[in-house]
Amino acid sequence: MNIVCIGAGNVGWHLASHLAEADFTISQVVSRTMDHAHKLGQLVNAPYTTSMSEVFPGADIYLYAVPDHQLSSVIAQNPIKTGIHCHTAGSLSMDIFAEHVENYGVFYPLQTFSKQKQVDFHDIPILIEANNKHNLHLLQKMASHLSNNILLTTFQQRQQLHLAAVFACNFSNNLFTIADQLLKGANLPFDLLLPLIRETVEKAAILTPETAQTGPAARKDTDVIEMHLTMLENDKQLQTLYRLLTDNILKNKATVSK
Amino acid sequence: MNIVCIGAGNVGWHLASHLAEADFTISQVVSRTMDHAHKLGQLVNAPYTTSMSEVFPGADIYLYAVPDHQLSSVIAQNPIKTGIHCHTAGSLSMDIFAEHVENYGVFYPLQTFSKQKQVDFHDIPILIEANNKHNLHLLQKMASHLSNNILLTTFQQRQQLHLAAVFACNFSNNLFTIADQLLKGANLPFDLLLPLIRETVEKAAILTPETAQTGPAARKDTDVIEMHLTMLENDKQLQTLYRLLTDNILKNKATVSK
Repeated sequence: MNIVCIGAGNVGWHLASHLAEADFTISQVVSRTMDHAHKLGQLVNAPYTTSMSEVFPGADIYLYAVPDHQLSSVIAQNPIKTGIHCHTAGSLSMDIFAEHVENYGVFYPLQTFSKQKQVDFHDIPILIEANNKHNLHLLQKMASHLSNNILLTTFQQRQQLHLAAVFACNFSNNLFTIADQLLKGANLPFDLLLPLIRETVEKAAILTPETAQTGPAARKDTDVIEMHLTMLENDKQLQTLYRLLTDNILKNKATVSK
Repeated sequence: MNIVCIGAGNVGWHLASHLAEADFTISQVVSRTMDHAHKLGQLVNAPYTTSMSEVFPGADIYLYAVPDHQLSSVIAQNPIKTGIHCHTAGSLSMDIFAEHVENYGVFYPLQTFSKQKQVDFHDIPILIEANNKHNLHLLQKMASHLSNNILLTTFQQRQQLHLAAVFACNFSNNLFTIADQLLKGANLPFDLLLPLIRETVEKAAILTPETAQTGPAARKDTDVIEMHLTMLENDKQLQTLYRLLTDNILKNKATVSK
């Protein structure tokens, strides 16, 4: 299969390089940023362009990995209407392609990508949708060369999974950032928390997160909770966040013990 | 060293069993809950009691692993005043012992413990404080048989670390619970998120959490943010939490780009 990769950000970068490693031919890299296009083109040994009017015809797959709000205009600018066109977004319907091309779908890898960090694709869930069985089969086949964890989902499921992922990944990472900032205030390194954070994840994996919940709120330890709220007195936003998450844990515990 | 363990909850359970494995003698287990006292006593091959008036004299260490709000009354009930008395709490000063015994300190393992899940103690940070150098040395020696990661801290540092740990561990776990609940609504299993969550942690470890931040807020993708807020319309508390964490990420990004 020949693949044209449109977008060379975090997602495009990792997808194109893993597809190339899995012996797919990346026939072209397209990015509006010359530096990104050039670097990813070199990495996957493909020609590159910054112009949608120069997109190569004849590829089997046109893979869009561009920011959600740019996707519909990028699709409209693509002069090539053949091949299967698919996007990689968690929260957009595949119908965004419907008025432009005949064959389309979604190829959504559920992972957090940064260019600075390699990832192992083998256990990353890849969510597939397509507008007919033939296209679904082809996208599924493509995904099977990257991962052992392929899911055929509906748009509603993908949307809900994306929302869940924002809580579990993006928002957790923000809590790690907050913890890092609190530790800096005490001249302590973030690394101290890593065994605890890793164990939190493995406990959630084995016991379910609800069963694994510990801490002052789970113990209904109001003295510690009040002390923490006092320590956060100078940052009202953080104090509100502490209160909200504590209430949430208390609410869950109340439901469980009922 | 002979150790009397007072408390057989999650912390007491793991500490006593790992100390016993490290060839310390647990000379007695004390818990107000007969079932816990009995089970932990059997596990570490020690006599047990539910009564503080029956605490054995002559131990080198009296290790308290009881809920924070019970600690001062449990200390007051202990008829034995010899040996080093230390608690295992993140947020209490060692001065809680000052009017009761001569030798005291803190032995705080920074980890989340549930009885259902074994932990590897070797990289768990153990925070040590004591009321004099001799006691500090003894507690440090005891800790060194459990972990390679021993820290001598001040009360203020331990307090701040505990607060950071609540954000990084207890609150993250609550976000995992929320994600789990959202996935249940779409008939999807929590396991789907595990590769993403594990990668989130490893990225934070390698890049710092601030650098590793991705997602709709980090991309300032207001369309997706608005859509997610609409999806949460029926749960105002969750919607507020989404908004607060999103604002937090936007605020951090604004500070970084300045």
